[in-house]
Amino acid sequence: MDASITPLRHGGLSLVQTTDFFYPLVDDPYMMGKITCANVLSDLYAMGVTDCDNMLMLLSCSNKMTDKERDVIIPIIMRGFKDAAEEAGSQVTGGQTVVNPWMTIGGVATTVCQPNEYILPDNSVVGDVLVLTKPLGTQVAVNAYQWLDQPERWNRVKLVVSEDDVRKAYQRAMFSMARLNRTAARLMHKYNAHGATDVTGFGLLGHANNLARVQKQEVGFVIHNLPVIAKMAAISKACGNLFGLLQGTSAETSGGLLIALPREQAAAFCKDIEKQEGYQSWIIGIVEKGNRTARIIDKPRVIEVPAKDRDGELW
Amino acid sequence: MDASITPLRHGGLSLVQTTDFFYPLVDDPYMMGKITCANVLSDLYAMGVTDCDNMLMLLSCSNKMTDKERDVIIPIIMRGFKDAAEEAGSQVTGGQTVVNPWMTIGGVATTVCQPNEYILPDNSVVGDVLVLTKPLGTQVAVNAYQWLDQPERWNRVKLVVSEDDVRKAYQRAMFSMARLNRTAARLMHKYNAHGATDVTGFGLLGHANNLARVQKQEVGFVIHNLPVIAKMAAISKACGNLFGLLQGTSAETSGGLLIALPREQAAAFCKDIEKQEGYQSWIIGIVEKGNRTARIIDKPRVIEVPAKDRDGELW
Repeated sequence: MDASITPLRHGGLSLVQTTDFFYPLVDDPYMMGKITCANVLSDLYAMGVTDCDNMLMLLSCSNKMTDKERDVIIPIIMRGFKDAAEEAGSQVTGGQTVVNPWMTIGGVATTVCQPNEYILPDNSVVGDVLVLTKPLGTQVAVNAYQWLDQPERWNRVKLVVSEDDVRKAYQRAMFSMARLNRTAARLMHKYNAHGATDVTGFGLLGHANNLARVQKQEVGFVIHNLPVIAKMAAISKACGNLFGLLQGTSAETSGGLLIALPREQAAAFCKDIEKQEGYQSWIIGIVEKGNRTARIIDKPRVIEVPAKDRDGELW
Repeated sequence: MDASITPLRHGGLSLVQTTDFFYPLVDDPYMMGKITCANVLSDLYAMGVTDCDNMLMLLSCSNKMTDKERDVIIPIIMRGFKDAAEEAGSQVTGGQTVVNPWMTIGGVATTVCQPNEYILPDNSVVGDVLVLTKPLGTQVAVNAYQWLDQPERWNRVKLVVSEDDVRKAYQRAMFSMARLNRTAARLMHKYNAHGATDVTGFGLLGHANNLARVQKQEVGFVIHNLPVIAKMAAISKACGNLFGLLQGTSAETSGGLLIALPREQAAAFCKDIEKQEGYQSWIIGIVEKGNRTARIIDKPRVIEVPAKDRDGELW
């Protein structure tokens, strides 16, 4: 499960709690704070929890930063984290900061729930479909953006993408990672989700397998469609399937929820979330009889998700 | 306050939560795990909370460790952490591990409480006395132990302490840091404590000042007695008041609780904790009228706390 559930001594309540920390991956400290917060909260949202009672922030500052850099950057990161927590209806009440050569950033998200406030992930049945709420390709986009300053890397991909493509994909990835999965968590209740996980470091296939493994029924997940930030599939191919983006092994940061929904509800779920947030979701696969594993078909359909610029309508 | 208190949506309950992480400071990985856990829990105990519902563990492994070292050491640290959590009647349900050049280790402690289960720290009144539940000097002991391998440092202190003194002090410090403040938290309720804090990185005076600052009444704390692990005061003096041990500025790790108690209850508190655990506590100061600060008198009485070896009766 993405978060731990601990029964409490008090009237049927449970403590739902998760922690995560990682290394910075975008160059905008405010967005980095938001992404970190969204990423921590995502584990709660994957359990269908919509309200986070409390957050803590965990920070290792790099000792390679000057005092000036630290005094400027750290408060901006903290503001991003705090703003995202407030957007989530939560609050940041504490945390801890230490020094280490490599900067790390993360947090703790905690909520106290009645049993109807969370959704166990293990109830998918044959005939369900799988919905994904954010496009794949954040790792490729972040790396490609860094390659703009590394001619030897850039030369390998410049035949398939323009610098502008990469900058737009990076923006799209950054805003996608900072987006909360909270509406998706709310709609999991409305559309009777049978279980979900969030797609992060193990990539789509890794997390799909983790979700398949815990199912009560003898089911398997088959994925047919891969929604990918525009041009990132081309970059991955040009680099010899770099990161395994089309094999589902490319790590994502603060990715979408992968949700098993009753077939007849899935389209309505996707329509509803798009109406509320202006972002597409996709039906990417099905639940069939199986041995609790997940696979991607041989030639999955790649759905190019337009990387509108920041002023584009979809933002 | 040492822990955050968040009112919950459910029937008068509050979420009490704290996080802490730091660098390893003893060479026994099992004890290091226990110390880390005791140190995190201590923030709850300082609030009079006796039961921790859930713990998470936070780890940065050093990339300078070999795979072999990592595979041996990390599980032992985790076992120490887990054993201490179980000793506290809690459990470890999750956590996160990353890699960084410097190892850090820490955790999150969370509990859900009714209002009578925690004690706000701000109710001390003139006439209260201050009790400390562990001796000072852990930082000096840990450093002196490291100096055994550094002749140029060792030469400065070998006139005042023997190698055996230092090894015993180090053992005493290690077991003291690994000891839970849980019994002290329980007895805070029994003896009507007016507030407490735990003594850690800011040293005795720093934490006494933090506690004094939040008092509702116009009080001040005056500290007359300094219980110090045997010989550590001599080392500090021999090194020109190193770390400011006798000024109350020497950092402690997983130190004791500093508790404001009604004068007539303090002796019974100390007697009770010694009866239950076999460890002394000390009345170290008084609460008088003041401007919400703390001070140590000019020539405090240094109480040498014997550093029995591991097999000694006090262990």
